[in-house]
Amino acid sequence: MFPEFSFAVTARDGAARAGIIRTPRGDIRTPAFMPVGTAGTVKAMLPGTVRELGADIVLGNTYHLMLRPGAERIARLGGLHKFMNWPHPILTDSGGYQVMSLSQLRKIDEQGVTFRSHIDGSPHLLNPERSMEVQLLLGSDIIMALDECTPFPSTYEEADKSMRLSMRWAERSKAAFADARGHALFGIVQGGVYPALREISASILCDIGFHGYAIGGLAVGEGRESMFATVERTTPHLPEDRPRYLMGVGKPADIVGAVLRGVDMFDCVLPTRSGRTGQAFTSEGVLNMRNACHAEDERPLDAALDCPASRDYSRAYLHHLVKSKEILGSMLLTWHNLAYYQELMHRIRQSIKAGELADLADRLSFESDG
Amino acid sequence: MFPEFSFAVTARDGAARAGIIRTPRGDIRTPAFMPVGTAGTVKAMLPGTVRELGADIVLGNTYHLMLRPGAERIARLGGLHKFMNWPHPILTDSGGYQVMSLSQLRKIDEQGVTFRSHIDGSPHLLNPERSMEVQLLLGSDIIMALDECTPFPSTYEEADKSMRLSMRWAERSKAAFADARGHALFGIVQGGVYPALREISASILCDIGFHGYAIGGLAVGEGRESMFATVERTTPHLPEDRPRYLMGVGKPADIVGAVLRGVDMFDCVLPTRSGRTGQAFTSEGVLNMRNACHAEDERPLDAALDCPASRDYSRAYLHHLVKSKEILGSMLLTWHNLAYYQELMHRIRQSIKAGELADLADRLSFESDG
Repeated sequence: MFPEFSFAVTARDGAARAGIIRTPRGDIRTPAFMPVGTAGTVKAMLPGTVRELGADIVLGNTYHLMLRPGAERIARLGGLHKFMNWPHPILTDSGGYQVMSLSQLRKIDEQGVTFRSHIDGSPHLLNPERSMEVQLLLGSDIIMALDECTPFPSTYEEADKSMRLSMRWAERSKAAFADARGHALFGIVQGGVYPALREISASILCDIGFHGYAIGGLAVGEGRESMFATVERTTPHLPEDRPRYLMGVGKPADIVGAVLRGVDMFDCVLPTRSGRTGQAFTSEGVLNMRNACHAEDERPLDAALDCPASRDYSRAYLHHLVKSKEILGSMLLTWHNLAYYQELMHRIRQSIKAGELADLADRLSFESDG
Repeated sequence: MFPEFSFAVTARDGAARAGIIRTPRGDIRTPAFMPVGTAGTVKAMLPGTVRELGADIVLGNTYHLMLRPGAERIARLGGLHKFMNWPHPILTDSGGYQVMSLSQLRKIDEQGVTFRSHIDGSPHLLNPERSMEVQLLLGSDIIMALDECTPFPSTYEEADKSMRLSMRWAERSKAAFADARGHALFGIVQGGVYPALREISASILCDIGFHGYAIGGLAVGEGRESMFATVERTTPHLPEDRPRYLMGVGKPADIVGAVLRGVDMFDCVLPTRSGRTGQAFTSEGVLNMRNACHAEDERPLDAALDCPASRDYSRAYLHHLVKSKEILGSMLLTWHNLAYYQELMHRIRQSIKAGELADLADRLSFESDG
């Protein structure tokens, strides 16, 4: 690893680790939750507020940003950090997942993906070389190798074939990344729900060599037990001294379960998207603020959280804002949900240091799925 | 006037006045601009941020709040101030204007207006007695008498008939208000664009006696010159020692022009609504942030304004947010526009104290309409 990018495990609790990823733009405390800033904004949040909640890093979506406003434009404007007024670390995905789920008229082959923008129909190409170029133009601190997210369900043969393509793309990604100074490159383990394929994928990626290793292709419908089983069979094959990132996960219980199985980094749209649809994560479980039961409830969402959105507004008011489709409802619920998630990560890190993560997981089991 | 509600003129510049309205919930520096908080929220703004910009008072809409969440519900929850987390003064309109512009199947007669909610079709009554009851249930600091907003254009006879109805409603409003302690009641001058009718209306209202006097029925299509002429012929007939409020006004040039003619208070959806549609008020005029000319403009909206939204984000980024329909775009542009308006009011107050308001009006003529 380059000296400007390092990972140190500072505490262990079973397979769980707490640590620090050092980057030129600042430290990332792990286990870390990365709020999703799809199009250059964590939706309905000021960047300064995201930071105050304890986020050390946010995620940007390569697919969205390459289409609008365009990677070359962001580069001309000084890069994504300056553009979105977020001077701290940024991880960008490769674009591979969303080009398959959002774009139109896509065609995938060994070379890469050709597709049309879902915004204006314009033609684009995404291959490992272009994905690296786009992410470097954005100025991302942690860059993801281009992969194909294996659909669920897939047969062993389908998952094998898809994983092998992702591994060839990982090698091309590494070559195109060309050890860009000040940036880190993560490989992505694929292989569906088949432990043998995951092990092969991890082995190939370790041979190529990356700054960190992601587990991709999960949280796509396989269910929590299958996801946990796959993570559990994958992490032992990843290097101890590199961060591990479970992509697109998840609910609080998913995060705690994955940390127990050795994962260090997470991202998910759940706290932000839920906030915009009136859902609040609380110690009482998930509350749907549209429900009439909140209409005259004077209690705040969670007075114990050090967050104005959680503390200074009644559930009755939030119910009114959500029912009235007021922007302030999205703002306050997103703010609260991100506060809840960052507080969860803080508790996870503290519990690992105290050797009490299993206890925390038990105590959280209700609220995580409530 | 009750001791807990007073108005003192502290400086004059021609017909313009600077002063202070004292209320139990705090002072209001005049000339004052009241951000509009229609449904219990200044849209896309945190209440604390509205306050930090220098707003001493916000406006709430009786029509919206009586329909959702309902005045009785807000009263049970401790009143509108607590509900929306705004402990400072609130003025509520009477509901008369919006019941005519928004409701369905309305029927107006001497008694009042019966109508159906535009939200759920439920039947409602609004008359002077109910308007006072609703505004007192909300806990409003400044309560408006119920009036009929005379349509534009109207003949002299139509405007006369409409004004006379409003005057009878003003008398019933005063009787129903019953000198409620800690609250102020404002009457509303009507009479269309006919100075003779405005004078009669002002005279009738002064005989009834109110804590302040509004000028209603303007900014409805009559044009700036006609509005200024009507204001100019009305304010001399209003008591010197009571605040004067020009309802629903306006653009920066409208506000400065009305202050020059003796008006003290204003409200308008322009800065907030424009913010949500991508318009920014700046010293260069009104900028439409959708325009492609901003796509690579690294300048902030106005680095001289002491507001993060005006200073910390490039026009290129705001253009991207508006084009992408991101909530953060509405948040930042509303924030900036309210900062611009409150800075305008600050400059107006300072100019009156310095005897230089006419100079400011000249300097503002471009940016006001730009």
